[in-house]
Amino acid sequence: MTQGKKRFIADIAANETVADIFVLAEKNMARKRDGNPFLTLVLGDKSGRMRAVMWDDVQRAAAAAGEGDFVQVQGTAGEYRGSVQLVVQSLAAVPADAVNPADFLPTTRRDADQMLARLQAVTETLHNPHLKALLAAFWSDDTFVAQFKKAPAAKQMHHAYLGGLLEHTLSMVLLADKIAAHYGGVDRDLLLTGAVLHDVGKVRELAYAHFIDYTDEGRLLSHIVIGVQMVADKIRTIADFPDSLAAMVKHLIVSHHGVRDFGSPEPPKTIEAVLLHQVDEIDARINAIREFVATETAGATWTGYHRLMERHFYIPDAAGRETAAPEGDGGDGE
Amino acid sequence: MTQGKKRFIADIAANETVADIFVLAEKNMARKRDGNPFLTLVLGDKSGRMRAVMWDDVQRAAAAAGEGDFVQVQGTAGEYRGSVQLVVQSLAAVPADAVNPADFLPTTRRDADQMLARLQAVTETLHNPHLKALLAAFWSDDTFVAQFKKAPAAKQMHHAYLGGLLEHTLSMVLLADKIAAHYGGVDRDLLLTGAVLHDVGKVRELAYAHFIDYTDEGRLLSHIVIGVQMVADKIRTIADFPDSLAAMVKHLIVSHHGVRDFGSPEPPKTIEAVLLHQVDEIDARINAIREFVATETAGATWTGYHRLMERHFYIPDAAGRETAAPEGDGGDGE
Amino acid sequence: MTQGKKRFIADIAANETVADIFVLAEKNMARKRDGNPFLTLVLGDKSGRMRAVMWDDVQRAAAAAGEGDFVQVQGTAGEYRGSVQLVVQSLAAVPADAVNPADFLPTTRRDADQMLARLQAVTETLHNPHLKALLAAFWSDDTFVAQFKKAPAAKQMHHAYLGGLLEHTLSMVLLADKIAAHYGGVDRDLLLTGAVLHDVGKVRELAYAHFIDYTDEGRLLSHIVIGVQMVADKIRTIADFPDSLAAMVKHLIVSHHGVRDFGSPEPPKTIEAVLLHQVDEIDARINAIREFVATETAGATWTGYHRLMERHFYIPDAAGRETAAPEGDGGDGE
Amino acid sequence: MTQGKKRFIADIAANETVADIFVLAEKNMARKRDGNPFLTLVLGDKSGRMRAVMWDDVQRAAAAAGEGDFVQVQGTAGEYRGSVQLVVQSLAAVPADAVNPADFLPTTRRDADQMLARLQAVTETLHNPHLKALLAAFWSDDTFVAQFKKAPAAKQMHHAYLGGLLEHTLSMVLLADKIAAHYGGVDRDLLLTGAVLHDVGKVRELAYAHFIDYTDEGRLLSHIVIGVQMVADKIRTIADFPDSLAAMVKHLIVSHHGVRDFGSPEPPKTIEAVLLHQVDEIDARINAIREFVATETAGATWTGYHRLMERHFYIPDAAGRETAAPEGDGGDGE
Amino acid sequence: MTQGKKRFIADIAANETVADIFVLAEKNMARKRDGNPFLTLVLGDKSGRMRAVMWDDVQRAAAAAGEGDFVQVQGTAGEYRGSVQLVVQSLAAVPADAVNPADFLPTTRRDADQMLARLQAVTETLHNPHLKALLAAFWSDDTFVAQFKKAPAAKQMHHAYLGGLLEHTLSMVLLADKIAAHYGGVDRDLLLTGAVLHDVGKVRELAYAHFIDYTDEGRLLSHIVIGVQMVADKIRTIADFPDSLAAMVKHLIVSHHGVRDFGSPEPPKTIEAVLLHQVDEIDARINAIREFVATETAGATWTGYHRLMERHFYIPDAAGRETAAPEGDGGDGE
Amino acid sequence: MTQGKKRFIADIAANETVADIFVLAEKNMARKRDGNPFLTLVLGDKSGRMRAVMWDDVQRAAAAAGEGDFVQVQGTAGEYRGSVQLVVQSLAAVPADAVNPADFLPTTRRDADQMLARLQAVTETLHNPHLKALLAAFWSDDTFVAQFKKAPAAKQMHHAYLGGLLEHTLSMVLLADKIAAHYGGVDRDLLLTGAVLHDVGKVRELAYAHFIDYTDEGRLLSHIVIGVQMVADKIRTIADFPDSLAAMVKHLIVSHHGVRDFGSPEPPKTIEAVLLHQVDEIDARINAIREFVATETAGATWTGYHRLMERHFYIPDAAGRETAAPEGDGGDGE
Repeated sequence: MTQGKKRFIADIAANETVADIFVLAEKNMARKRDGNPFLTLVLGDKSGRMRAVMWDDVQRAAAAAGEGDFVQVQGTAGEYRGSVQLVVQSLAAVPADAVNPADFLPTTRRDADQMLARLQAVTETLHNPHLKALLAAFWSDDTFVAQFKKAPAAKQMHHAYLGGLLEHTLSMVLLADKIAAHYGGVDRDLLLTGAVLHDVGKVRELAYAHFIDYTDEGRLLSHIVIGVQMVADKIRTIADFPDSLAAMVKHLIVSHHGVRDFGSPEPPKTIEAVLLHQVDEIDARINAIREFVATETAGATWTGYHRLMERHFYIPDAAGRETAAPEGDGGDGE
Repeated sequence: MTQGKKRFIADIAANETVADIFVLAEKNMARKRDGNPFLTLVLGDKSGRMRAVMWDDVQRAAAAAGEGDFVQVQGTAGEYRGSVQLVVQSLAAVPADAVNPADFLPTTRRDADQMLARLQAVTETLHNPHLKALLAAFWSDDTFVAQFKKAPAAKQMHHAYLGGLLEHTLSMVLLADKIAAHYGGVDRDLLLTGAVLHDVGKVRELAYAHFIDYTDEGRLLSHIVIGVQMVADKIRTIADFPDSLAAMVKHLIVSHHGVRDFGSPEPPKTIEAVLLHQVDEIDARINAIREFVATETAGATWTGYHRLMERHFYIPDAAGRETAAPEGDGGDGE
Repeated sequence: MTQGKKRFIADIAANETVADIFVLAEKNMARKRDGNPFLTLVLGDKSGRMRAVMWDDVQRAAAAAGEGDFVQVQGTAGEYRGSVQLVVQSLAAVPADAVNPADFLPTTRRDADQMLARLQAVTETLHNPHLKALLAAFWSDDTFVAQFKKAPAAKQMHHAYLGGLLEHTLSMVLLADKIAAHYGGVDRDLLLTGAVLHDVGKVRELAYAHFIDYTDEGRLLSHIVIGVQMVADKIRTIADFPDSLAAMVKHLIVSHHGVRDFGSPEPPKTIEAVLLHQVDEIDARINAIREFVATETAGATWTGYHRLMERHFYIPDAAGRETAAPEGDGGDGE
Repeated sequence: MTQGKKRFIADIAANETVADIFVLAEKNMARKRDGNPFLTLVLGDKSGRMRAVMWDDVQRAAAAAGEGDFVQVQGTAGEYRGSVQLVVQSLAAVPADAVNPADFLPTTRRDADQMLARLQAVTETLHNPHLKALLAAFWSDDTFVAQFKKAPAAKQMHHAYLGGLLEHTLSMVLLADKIAAHYGGVDRDLLLTGAVLHDVGKVRELAYAHFIDYTDEGRLLSHIVIGVQMVADKIRTIADFPDSLAAMVKHLIVSHHGVRDFGSPEPPKTIEAVLLHQVDEIDARINAIREFVATETAGATWTGYHRLMERHFYIPDAAGRETAAPEGDGGDGE
Repeated sequence: MTQGKKRFIADIAANETVADIFVLAEKNMARKRDGNPFLTLVLGDKSGRMRAVMWDDVQRAAAAAGEGDFVQVQGTAGEYRGSVQLVVQSLAAVPADAVNPADFLPTTRRDADQMLARLQAVTETLHNPHLKALLAAFWSDDTFVAQFKKAPAAKQMHHAYLGGLLEHTLSMVLLADKIAAHYGGVDRDLLLTGAVLHDVGKVRELAYAHFIDYTDEGRLLSHIVIGVQMVADKIRTIADFPDSLAAMVKHLIVSHHGVRDFGSPEPPKTIEAVLLHQVDEIDARINAIREFVATETAGATWTGYHRLMERHFYIPDAAGRETAAPEGDGGDGE
Repeated sequence: MTQGKKRFIADIAANETVADIFVLAEKNMARKRDGNPFLTLVLGDKSGRMRAVMWDDVQRAAAAAGEGDFVQVQGTAGEYRGSVQLVVQSLAAVPADAVNPADFLPTTRRDADQMLARLQAVTETLHNPHLKALLAAFWSDDTFVAQFKKAPAAKQMHHAYLGGLLEHTLSMVLLADKIAAHYGGVDRDLLLTGAVLHDVGKVRELAYAHFIDYTDEGRLLSHIVIGVQMVADKIRTIADFPDSLAAMVKHLIVSHHGVRDFGSPEPPKTIEAVLLHQVDEIDARINAIREFVATETAGATWTGYHRLMERHFYIPDAAGRETAAPEGDGGDGE
């Protein structure tokens, strides 16, 4: 039987008594001036993170659980330097199967298997045998597929929830397909292959077991460089994959952030690469704005200030709008 | 009977004798150190512009034609400071109906009436009565419609030819319609209205009688500010147009360049404004790249350096590509 | 009889009991996990804003007052996430005429009628009949004049107080007049007209009934675009106003922020527009620095760090300086 | 008897025979592949510079004149890589007193002695004895005064002619005086001292004997750093000059470019420094625009594109304007 | 007998009772609404700064100590606007010789006399007599040497501790020496002279008696401008110092920040200046990263986010690394 | 017997008759308005490139040689749009072994085998067995070694000559070694491995058979992404290479341009990566400045304007300097 959370970090206020389950995101042993050890912790759940400190019984607590484990915590909320900080009285490990994962990581509201099936159905319609073989190599890699279905698309900003990578990829593929039909002279096979693969490096750039964060590899190499290597590894398994086509596919990954300043070593230099970047920007931005708007108090006509986009957004009729869009991104009647 | 051009400016080399028709783009009387007058001219045709100078018989020549007139010119091409410069022996005005306008201004390859009909058909499908009335006010304004069918979308860079504004607008409306269907929660009526109207200020920002240039009003106010005034003028003729809706429509025009740095006094603050900006960017960029690629020598796999986009573009198979896209922008089989 | 404020928001510290009048700047009904409603509020006075929350009796309190109303509040100050937050026990509406407006909005220390008279006296000295007619059209519009006398020049940074727009406008006109006399070849009539009208859009960009904030129209269109429309509306009422002069006047408004990055769709392209921008920058900056210096503790020789201007300012002799400038901006003995 | 120029560099076209006097701006001996020497030269006059090459009799020519000398040149104009290049047949030195200096360096149209007298008259009105002593130390330094009267204010862009530094300084002082009167609380003595001294480093940053160029010291240190040293040198000669006042004066020089990006190690941090920067910007910009407009063909309503300011300028009525401003900068009726 | 600190500011938490010695960094008298005075203070020690307020007995306390004095304080820690603030009950001056200076200002762990000796030994190896004389003039200036041994290299970021300037200078000189040997054609004497003198202005830019802050002169002029003046003052005492060499040395100081945006009025224009800038950047950056890493909790593999460098740093094996580098910067076995 | 060049492109002037060998860099067939074909060509040698056109006998000429071939050309130099253009009368292929390669591509003045031996000797001193195995895998790959010895380090700017990559790599490794010794706590093995491998991707990014240009792969992926793949390919051949160490090595390649804006998807996040970037910047910059200075006319004290570095460089004593640095980069006596 799984245990439900009673109280989420975002709701905890100073002076509150807390008895709940969290992810142990960080654990460090420090030493007071008198030489005695104490623990500084970071606890997490799907609503955010919170610093915590534990003064007593620390050796046993430290041994009880490691970073990434779930822990049952008793404590009292205080404030330290302007943030809530929990003073922990007791801490004990909780088995992963005893918790509801959805309490710790936000998850897409859409069905992952259906999204994957839809995505694979689109890739079935490609004509280029090399590109079909490349995508098939990914689809037949069970480890990859499992990661790809679960991974978020980002740590924050857009599609930052389990399944977000698949949701973002599917939405982009469907949108790219429409745009390829709108403009003549676009290599649809290439564009859709790029749309499927552009962010595959995120399955290794991000860790998302119990909370979303960057992996060491992700911080050192970026999902662009990881993705190119993953594609190169698959291409090596396919006979007679043309070198020039390989370079074109990798270029789509390399350039999909549009400009060097956002992490693309080269800017888009083909029509398909230009379109892929634009489609990525649209889909990421629309999702980001929606997620941001969703955090606003009902009834407000303007959101708070969005730091990265540097503006407030206008919500002319938030209630009516919500009913008008029941299917979410990419939900165009299918 | 109209007279055809024999030689275009882009092809004229030093030492060549020239006898042909040009637009008189600029005409200035200057004075030599000995006190005698001479004329400095700029001549144009659809392939570009060329400086010219006339030493003799200048009073009569100066009186014969004004800026914007067509002129029959006899002269010899020389070089001055690294550019071709024509030394003119004689110059005479030619009536506008005696020339082939297509020699002087590039024109869309698509049919303006068909494009307009297609555009109006789409706007017929809107549901919001105020927005329908607003678009109807534009469609029933014959002066505007005539300008809107003829205007280019830019002086250079993208859709810089007669009919380019209509072609760009239609392509955007069709693409915006697809994207509105892809994402739930988008106000299709508002987005399509913005797509139709976002660049209407260009009919006054640009002059395109015999060559494309900015008007004084265009340089002083920008098509964004002119467009807002044109929309305000039409809204004034419509009873009970809601103020808040008027602000929303104007916001689409105001923000469609996306960031202040590109001339939008405010960035997009609604979902529709964000999408409109993105669609504009896609359509302008795809057209710009195609126009740029089209100027390259057949067979090259890389274009020259594009100064504004700061890169070379890759043309994997130019010949094959051209056949693959017979319908042009927005030509998705309808 | 009006009620005076006893305690301003900027002075309220945690744990303090509060019983005072505030503007109800925001009011939102939310729901606790147990399904019961609670109110989240933002309260304001001239010293700033403060979040507040109300747990009991919320239905009656919510019905008692709307956003923008004055309210008598009983509560206790606490801290939440590093800021003071008031827990409200009771809340009741207070009629607007029972409060001292100066407690809620800072106001210019100068006399609005005198400033307006001075400004109109200067515009009387213009020679160009069209420009005189344009300014007269504004002066004879009572609604406009009432707004123009009351409006602030900004939400923050410079002249952010009632009457600030008029004070800033007058100071600029007087300074522009001196500069026009200094440089030959400047069209004084045009420059002064631009100085009077450059910020008129702010009467609609900003709301300043009980606190200063942006209006929806202001956020969507900017005071530059609003101002151009206001000028266009007045010009439409004047017979034979030359189109080219209208474009020149609008250009002054359009370009007065100097560069696109600060919201001007076009940069200044005439001598008058260049000067207007410079005069605006001087007057805004000097006022901003003075307001900033005025918030510093007496005796300090350096101000705190000014985030926007990215520096500390030096105050060599604050006391002596204050006596030296009793008349404020533009107070050059007249 | 001085010899007048017949032909200026800006007017020389390819294939023209030239026999005229120039400044020998650069002279380098190079060696052909066959081992024989040839000379590459740069010749100058007030209209610009021109490359030249000399194939024969080079040893004698090389010995005849050094860089900075005036030379009588016979040659033929050709083109090399898009620019005019003179092939020199003969070259002989001309004594400096045999030429008209005004042919080689543009000069202010105003009287230097009158400007200086006006400037000194203003500085006489200062009250602070230390600042008066500082300015007096400059005025009594005959070497400095001679340089200050002759120096240009820049190599190009604004006041780039002999006497330009004095003209620019006087205009700024007069304008600063007006602005100091407009705003209360400004230390007029300090501001005017800064206005007089802000660019004194230019007398050593620029060389302007026969053509305007940077000196080695100017390129290595900048006029800001040179100016601070010049002021420090004068202050050392004055008894009891307060250290804090010295820092304030130097700060005005250090910060007068407004931002680090334009060469000020520190931005303006006092009201006087902010004003000094603004006044400098106004005066430099107005002069730059006027000089730029003056190079345009009579009758044009728009200038060419100004690369540094990134725009075209509008000249509504160039002819009328010229008559309206006979006195030039700072010519406010005195 | 000196008194040791018991509690450092960085460790003080809300609600704690404090009785300890601090530096009185700022002291301002303010007035409550009831007219009674109170004191707002800033207290400091080597771990940071803290705001404090004193309500009672303020006149006596204010008279007891001035800014920069050491004070014995009794009080209680509270929170105000998210930061710890001390409510002071009593405050009394403590003589400077009664405290341990190291409690108030962090100090280099290396021996200043040894570092200076090492540095002077290197400068002994120069060959250019003028440069040797210049350095000797500094070394024989006892006041300078005392300051140079004590000054920090910055207020924060890198080498922000007593002796940091000397440590940074020595490390740069040793590193510059190696690089001069690596590349041929480098003027070693000039480069090393620049390395020794590049930051000498910091002895006057920074105040570091009881805490590190900028001096008025430092904020108004910057250490670059101050340093140039100090070098000029020394050069004036040396017979026959060549002007061109003086300009070269000053250029090294002027340009050592590399670009105008970081406060260099001119960028490096000689090989030596380019190298000096690079060596400065390496040494400052390596020290900054080390100092930053040193503040992290033991065991972490990633540091927190470094705001100025905009990244997290990776610490693959912090423990092992520490043992591997016992000698610190420049400790290459000598 | 190889044929020597008689005339280099940089020396060809208009109207000259040319009969010499060039590389055929580009060849395109175009069609005149009369339907007849003509050839547009680009010819190259080590001094630059030149456009050419051929009007007659084009079919045979086109068949005679392909892009990249050496060709014997007869023609006459003209000018077209400000550049020299050759009108070709005849064109015939020349076998590659009949030309002196040094006429067509500039080459390092140092001995490639000696440089390689020196480099391998340094890598022999590493201790980490995995990194030694990685470098050994490169050294034992004969194809790679051959390319690595021949490749330039860039198309232009620095080390843009055959052997330049090896010369740059060796110089960096030697310099990095010194810096690793200067600072404690640096992982020398890792830093030197990064120095050896940071630019290996350039052997595929650049084509340098007969002239230096980017390859398709280079333009699409960048040498950073190519280099990471090359390292990944070698690591795959080594047993038990730790994943974390692989990520560290790849990070050195990924981040060596220092900032995203210069093409690094991630900035340096380890001490070794920070140092590698700095060493690369020093070595590239010093070489670039020297190459730039070397193109200046002997005797000049200032170079022309360097567009990318945006400054002139000072050459105090060019002649003396040249003798002082006989060994070139990295030539520190070994």
